[in-house]
Amino acid sequence: MDDQHYMKLAIEMARATKGQTSPNPSVGAVVVKDNEVLGMGAHLKAGEAHAEVHALTMAGDKAKGATIYVTLEPCSHYGKTPPCAELVIQSGIKRAVVANQDPNPQVSGRGIRLLEEAGIEVAVGVCEAEAATLNPFFYHSMRTGTPYVTLKTAMSMDGKIATATGESQWITSEEARLDVHRYRHKHDAILVGVNTVLSDNPSLTTRLPGGGKHPIRVVLDTHLRTPLSSSLIQNPEAPTWIITGSQVESALMRPFADYPHVQIVPLTTHTIEIKELLTVLGERDVTSLFVEGGGTIHDAFVRAKAVQEVVQYIAPILIGGKEALTPVEGTGIGHLSEALRLTITEFKQIGPDLKVIMKPEEWRE
Amino acid sequence: MDDQHYMKLAIEMARATKGQTSPNPSVGAVVVKDNEVLGMGAHLKAGEAHAEVHALTMAGDKAKGATIYVTLEPCSHYGKTPPCAELVIQSGIKRAVVANQDPNPQVSGRGIRLLEEAGIEVAVGVCEAEAATLNPFFYHSMRTGTPYVTLKTAMSMDGKIATATGESQWITSEEARLDVHRYRHKHDAILVGVNTVLSDNPSLTTRLPGGGKHPIRVVLDTHLRTPLSSSLIQNPEAPTWIITGSQVESALMRPFADYPHVQIVPLTTHTIEIKELLTVLGERDVTSLFVEGGGTIHDAFVRAKAVQEVVQYIAPILIGGKEALTPVEGTGIGHLSEALRLTITEFKQIGPDLKVIMKPEEWRE
Repeated sequence: MDDQHYMKLAIEMARATKGQTSPNPSVGAVVVKDNEVLGMGAHLKAGEAHAEVHALTMAGDKAKGATIYVTLEPCSHYGKTPPCAELVIQSGIKRAVVANQDPNPQVSGRGIRLLEEAGIEVAVGVCEAEAATLNPFFYHSMRTGTPYVTLKTAMSMDGKIATATGESQWITSEEARLDVHRYRHKHDAILVGVNTVLSDNPSLTTRLPGGGKHPIRVVLDTHLRTPLSSSLIQNPEAPTWIITGSQVESALMRPFADYPHVQIVPLTTHTIEIKELLTVLGERDVTSLFVEGGGTIHDAFVRAKAVQEVVQYIAPILIGGKEALTPVEGTGIGHLSEALRLTITEFKQIGPDLKVIMKPEEWRE
Repeated sequence: MDDQHYMKLAIEMARATKGQTSPNPSVGAVVVKDNEVLGMGAHLKAGEAHAEVHALTMAGDKAKGATIYVTLEPCSHYGKTPPCAELVIQSGIKRAVVANQDPNPQVSGRGIRLLEEAGIEVAVGVCEAEAATLNPFFYHSMRTGTPYVTLKTAMSMDGKIATATGESQWITSEEARLDVHRYRHKHDAILVGVNTVLSDNPSLTTRLPGGGKHPIRVVLDTHLRTPLSSSLIQNPEAPTWIITGSQVESALMRPFADYPHVQIVPLTTHTIEIKELLTVLGERDVTSLFVEGGGTIHDAFVRAKAVQEVVQYIAPILIGGKEALTPVEGTGIGHLSEALRLTITEFKQIGPDLKVIMKPEEWRE
């Protein structure tokens, strides 16, 4: 068995925890001596033990002289838990194999240096590309301080999200709609515009067979028009942040104080600027944002080029109609040279529909 | 070697002639005795020899006692050539293997009966489904008397065919645009609305490396607004039919008489009804029609449910804009229950873009 073999095992364990560790990354660790697996672990939840702790606890005294495989550089700082690099040193580990360095520019490489200074042999970069796909949210938010934005749209094969008379339920299939809930489960926060709240009164919760994590619900609502009677306010299943412009009067905000799950978050400008919004969300530990529309909101993100990933569901039906709504509305771009150009990274059929995943061409995570 | 082996060879030869035999179908034939191939042929062009003639000519006297494999039931009538069933009988063929019966309800089964009455052993249905895909245009037009309609659209991933300011060149890639020319080559006729002529002044010819067949150019132009100065009129590369409503005055038509490749074809009603249009095209031996827009024309075909196939090219770019044009415009359908529901039969990447082929759910060719 070679290094890649054990690293792939660590990656598999990390992959199994995707969506449950935020704002921390998914990390897996394996302790091996003489081709015998002595410990295995993954980080399960922010605030709880890191992957190395679980794996080294399982290995116990046998960790002496062993190799540890870990998908992410062991941490070097006292956070909610003591630094893993120290624990690795104390355990008598002889060799450490690391897939990815820490993306946080302030600490990257420090954990590795600690290990090396303690005389441990360190190999960095084993299965690096594969491990990097484990935590696109974490890597992006660490580097930029703003959440990884996934824009989701669903439309007919002729680019409509409703008929000319406004009928929209349902264009895509049950299978596609279920898939959307998997994305909600994976993301820290979900975002819609107030027009979607007014027209659809959505609950924006995760409804998966077997349960799921509800994302924080974020509503872009410049003038605070969200009705107190809406599902988002009446139903306290998930924290709900209403982002407004700077001019909303406190009298208008007061009634929302009766709902502890609801926060009104005014920005510094009259209109909502996407860049400021993302900075505010980043400061609030949101590492991933799932944008579910409507079309004017999508247009704002597209024009701000604030999109890391696009997930598009396309139903093979033709609806027609000059007046029918489309997935990205607003003013749009004027010249094709300004369009948001993407690369298709995955496409497949999901039920009768097509699912296409795209990333901006400049995407380099 | 079994029957399927030789039938697949006949199908391959037929496939090689797709697009050049209209209004006749592509047909291949193979003559075999004692596992030795004695003759091979395909129908190359309407008015010329049928596949059986070529294969039996090649086999000569050796055809006596041999088996003939033919993708379509041998014809039984005197058309532009004598009936093939008689030639098969005269050649001393002992056994005939046929993939598909003739789809023309007036003659279907007659050729087979002639062979059987002459004492030839006949097997029907070998590789039937595969052979049926050779001639969807022929089968559809034979059964219905109207052309097989392929609707082609090309759009951005958010359903736009132009920016809000009208910029449309180019949304899809060069690879996708080249693929469109393969469809033009394959179809008898290409159709656009007069608005496309007025805004884009297209030539609607086939431009493939190595050449290609130009389809008949059909313009839907209720009030005969096609300018004499347009490419379609000034450039006689392909026959051009301008379909108008019934009220166009002959004075307006007169100047077009100077262009022998141009015909004005008034329908019987003031507005152009898609069903009548297709009947007229069928009477003029058009077996396949490639509809290239614009959005109002697509809407008319969709609402008439007069579509046998949809080819959609989707470029992974986001354009946005409430006012940007979409692939199917017009009034559209009011309720989702009236939408044209399709089944995706093929999807693949073509260059950076996605190509999706769909057929109506009721499609049973």
